[in-house]
Amino acid sequence: MDALRCLPGVGPKSAQRLAFHLLERDRPGAYRLIKALQAALQSIGHCRLCHNLSETEVCALCLDSSRDHSLLCIIETPADALAVEQATGYRGIYYVLMGHLSPLDGIGPVELGLDQLEGRLNTGEIREIILATNPTVEGEATAHYIANMARDRGIRATRIAHGVPLGGELEYIDGGTLSHAFSGRREL
Amino acid sequence: MDALRCLPGVGPKSAQRLAFHLLERDRPGAYRLIKALQAALQSIGHCRLCHNLSETEVCALCLDSSRDHSLLCIIETPADALAVEQATGYRGIYYVLMGHLSPLDGIGPVELGLDQLEGRLNTGEIREIILATNPTVEGEATAHYIANMARDRGIRATRIAHGVPLGGELEYIDGGTLSHAFSGRREL
Repeated sequence: MDALRCLPGVGPKSAQRLAFHLLERDRPGAYRLIKALQAALQSIGHCRLCHNLSETEVCALCLDSSRDHSLLCIIETPADALAVEQATGYRGIYYVLMGHLSPLDGIGPVELGLDQLEGRLNTGEIREIILATNPTVEGEATAHYIANMARDRGIRATRIAHGVPLGGELEYIDGGTLSHAFSGRREL
Repeated sequence: MDALRCLPGVGPKSAQRLAFHLLERDRPGAYRLIKALQAALQSIGHCRLCHNLSETEVCALCLDSSRDHSLLCIIETPADALAVEQATGYRGIYYVLMGHLSPLDGIGPVELGLDQLEGRLNTGEIREIILATNPTVEGEATAHYIANMARDRGIRATRIAHGVPLGGELEYIDGGTLSHAFSGRREL
């Protein structure tokens, strides 16, 4: 039960329920889980180029020659890459920061590995970077920091649009977002 | 109890609770409610110009000469006007559609009173219209219909930005919104 609590969202009660379920009703499932965890821990590391989770030294996405390697999308986590990949028709490549700038927690540009990103930008292969960090204070700060890095090298830096989410109602949208949606209005 | 059920969100149980509360514990409150409802029903109508709820024939907002009368914000409901007014620094005037185009429900341009809006655009006083209808299918259709009306008269038509809401996380944002945020990305 104690070990199961390493799973996110699992507290003492849930851990107990999971443990009893595995022991009483699904011992084969527990064995499969052991095997899968062992295999995953041994074989999955980070892609040398984009830092996304990968079983190989360079991930399939970075090796895919049908994608546009001059378009680099900067995101915070591997889950974000998956979300973008599933939702949009994006055909460029990714760069996973594995976090965001957060000076209060001692995470500056060096800790975030932005020097490596700098080296990547210096190669001259990148034409545009799309900053898809989260729309939070830290995400914005990170986006602006990287945008400055790109500008210094004459690379185009764009930020994903902020505004009202689809299917919502104006009445129930928070003030900050509505204010952004107004200032960011576009010609129809 | 039956009468109380005209309030939105009040079902049989809530109606019963409200009725008992008013009768047993707050009879003065019930009298005040009667008075307020009577006063509101008698004095509040729609502004002749913007169709927003108003106690006067033309509302205070439409009469306010310190606002920019060449900037017209199109919204669906009076509640949206309030949301925009509270959240943004918008200093133009409003036009409340009181709904959206919905051909399936028999609501076309005429039923929505778009001929009156057309007359308003024909006066030549409007320089830009901001389409702040809801980001739903009907809201989009309404926005595009009105944008065409404006274009025919050489008036600038803008749409509030669609994209990821502030403070969110990319991972949990729906695919449609994320896709819009990507295609609507802007230079930083």
